[in-house]
Formats: sequence, C-alpha cells, structure tokens
Amino acid sequence: MVQLYEDERLDYLLAENLRIIQSPKVFAFSLDSVLLARFAYLPIQRGNIIDLCTGNGVIPLLLSSRTKAKITGVEIQERIYDMAKRSVEYNGLHEQIHFVHDDMKNMPATFGHGQFDVVTCNPPYFPVKEKAVINENEHLAIARHEIYCTLKDVIQISAQLVRPGGKVAFVHRPGRLAEIIMLMKTYRIEPKRLRFVYPKLGKEANTILIEGIKDGKADLKILPPLIVYDNHGQYTPELKEILYG
Amino acid sequence: MVQLYEDERLDYLLAENLRIIQSPKVFAFSLDSVLLARFAYLPIQRGNIIDLCTGNGVIPLLLSSRTKAKITGVEIQERIYDMAKRSVEYNGLHEQIHFVHDDMKNMPATFGHGQFDVVTCNPPYFPVKEKAVINENEHLAIARHEIYCTLKDVIQISAQLVRPGGKVAFVHRPGRLAEIIMLMKTYRIEPKRLRFVYPKLGKEANTILIEGIKDGKADLKILPPLIVYDNHGQYTPELKEILYG
Repeated sequence: MVQLYEDERLDYLLAENLRIIQSPKVFAFSLDSVLLARFAYLPIQRGNIIDLCTGNGVIPLLLSSRTKAKITGVEIQERIYDMAKRSVEYNGLHEQIHFVHDDMKNMPATFGHGQFDVVTCNPPYFPVKEKAVINENEHLAIARHEIYCTLKDVIQISAQLVRPGGKVAFVHRPGRLAEIIMLMKTYRIEPKRLRFVYPKLGKEANTILIEGIKDGKADLKILPPLIVYDNHGQYTPELKEILYG
Repeated sequence: MVQLYEDERLDYLLAENLRIIQSPKVFAFSLDSVLLARFAYLPIQRGNIIDLCTGNGVIPLLLSSRTKAKITGVEIQERIYDMAKRSVEYNGLHEQIHFVHDDMKNMPATFGHGQFDVVTCNPPYFPVKEKAVINENEHLAIARHEIYCTLKDVIQISAQLVRPGGKVAFVHRPGRLAEIIMLMKTYRIEPKRLRFVYPKLGKEANTILIEGIKDGKADLKILPPLIVYDNHGQYTPELKEILYG
C-alpha cells in the first residue's frame, strides 16, 4: 500500500523489480539518472554511498539492486523528498536506503568529511537565467536550474564527502565538460572514466558520464561511445540491456 | 628533383597530390597528424597559420590543400626541419609554407603575440621517464617525449601566438585530456570542439582532437565519434574519405 497525491503515479522502475512514485508536475526521473546509476562503480558487499540532488530517489533505488552498501539520498525539496521516502517504504528498502531532507551544502557538517566510498549526483544542468526559469513550475525549475546549488557547489561538496581513494560520478551536458573537469581537478577529484552518450551514431553527444577518484593519479579513460538509438529509431542493444536488463 | 639522405623515402601524401620525405629512423608522420589536419577549422582565403612541433611538415602540407593562408611550421630538430623544407620545395609550395628551425618557445618573441589566426600542434605525447626514452634513437625520442617541450609549454605558447578569437587545435592521448582542458582554460583558450577517435566501435578511445578559441565563450561540443576500423578490420567509410578523399 502506498499513499499517492495529486497526479502521482506508481511507475515500474525498468529492469529492476521495483516501483517508483513519479509525477509529471513535480518530478519524474530521466534516462540520464538511469545511465548514471549503471555507470558508477560501486562496492558490492559493504560501504557508504551518497546521492546528492536525489529527486524522487531513482538513483538510490537503482543502485540498491547492485550493492549491499548503505545508500543516503539528499533532496532539498520536501515535496519530492516525501515521494522518495514513500517509494523506498513501498519497496521495503528502508534498511538500505535513507533519505535526508536538507540542502546538500549542510552534508559535510551532518556526516563529516571523507565518510563516503561513493558519491553520485545528477545535478541541475542549467545556469540560472530568469526567462528560462520563470516559465516553469517551481519544482521543475529547482531540479533543472542552478537555483539552490551550482556546479561548483556540487563538486566541492562531493569532494568533501568522499573518502581519499573514493569515487565520485556525475551525469551532465557536454557544454559544461570543461568546467566540470576544471572543478574536479580544483577539488582534487581526478577524472578517471569518461563516457559520452550519443543519441545516434554520427550525431554530437548530448550527455556525459564522468567519474573521478579523490586524490587519484591522473590517467583518464574514454570509454566506448554509448549510442542510444540505431538507424531505425530503435534503442540499441546496449541501451535495451541498461533499461530492461 | 629532390635530394634524399640515408633511408629517406619520398612518400605519397594520401589523398592530396603531394609527396613527403620520410624516414623510419628519423621521422615518419602518423595518422594522428592527418586527423588533426582534417579536424582543424581554417580560414580559406587568407590568414596566418602556425604549426608547432611540425616534424617533417605533414600538417602544413595537408593544410595547404584546404587554405590559401600562409602557413609557418616550427621544428626544433635540424635534421627533420631539413626534410620538411625539401618536401615543400619538391611540391612547389615555398610561397605558402615557410619553416623555422627553432625552439617553439622563441616564437612569441620572433613573431609577436596574437599574430596567428590558427595554431595547430601534434606535440610529444609522453612525459619523460628515463627508461622509456633511453631505448629510442634521439630523433624519435624528441618527437615522442616531452624532452624539449611539455604540454604546458605547448598550450602556453599557443595561447600567446593566437589572436583573440583565433583557434588552437591539438591531437593527443585520452590520458592527458583533463590536464589539457585545465591548461587550455588556464591560458584562456576555451575548449569548443572535442572529438574522440575510437579504433573500433565498442573500444575505448585512443586519440583525442580538441579545438579551442582564445577568449571564447564556454560551450563545448562533443562531435560524433570517429571510428577507425569496422568489424571486419577495414577502414570505415569516414576514415577512407579522410585518408584517400
């Protein structure tokens, strides 16, 4: 049993035997979060993982199928945090996944520095420009635009939360890659794996997946391109595998 | 007529109706230089282009088929500079292409700052580690290892030579990408176009092509992946087109 509010739906979470509460007006997860959840390296048996800007908790839910580590999700919007909490209850995962309703910038004070093995984040992609934000509802605007946290905040806070040798993984847009790499190096998260997502072979990438290691040695790998659609507009085999298992 | 020394050969330069002097013991151009020559944006009718670490002049020779701009090549090794000069003479391109035998680090003093529309460079890829260098002959070691110029030198000097709004293009290895982006931003060459070369679909990239604009606006495009070989070990159509026209 689960309480659903307004236009909320209880959707299937793809390949995993899980359900997730979504709402088109408040928060619905994107392919980007699914790709990040699959991309990130995880400890299998134990450890501590934190997901910043967790939204309706899609990344913690997906990660739970790949690890026994404890997972914390942080969400600043109470309405969306509440969706995440109810989804975790519904799936019976409250012993593994815990959500915090707070500003991520308070997390280093809450948990201390260097306490996490892995940090993941699908942050707001867009700098704040009044016009773009004004036409959206507040929930969506906060998830998409750097209203409560900038890219610099995300990377700085991640660097504080992760332990030396721990991993930090982000999904973002190609236009911000140079800035991301600069900030990662500034905060001593050395970029180690980078994967580009192309909507189709022959098109420019529209998404990047990047993982770094705190205080790691400089040596970046560019993984094989991830192509979303084939020439017939169908998901490629790799995408199907990620989405449906 | 052309004078050839030792084991030098007068090779065909791929698609272009050009010949180039090469020697396995002294210098032979790589696919990377061909890819860079094709990747770089050029002014068509007029302008000034400089190619650092020009080796036997393969990049200026290839660029000359795409532009009427003046092209300067800079090579620190006299033996290789001499090969470049003879190739340009042989091809009758001495009015368009001019070589300088000098350390690139002297070029801002020689030409002044901000005098070039485009800077290209296929630099030495490998940091100096005694063991790796010691087994190679000196000519090859200097071309491959950062003996006379580091990545920082290359990017700093390029930034001094290019005009505001001008373009700088490099080819390099993925392992150095984070450092390249950091240095480009440090010296105000904003990364704008990035292309990854994958030996085969499904493999990690082994080469990167990156272009920045001096004092440009931050907005990086990730171009479609460039795949070298198809599943049958043959060049892909795009590679054939680059190599043979």
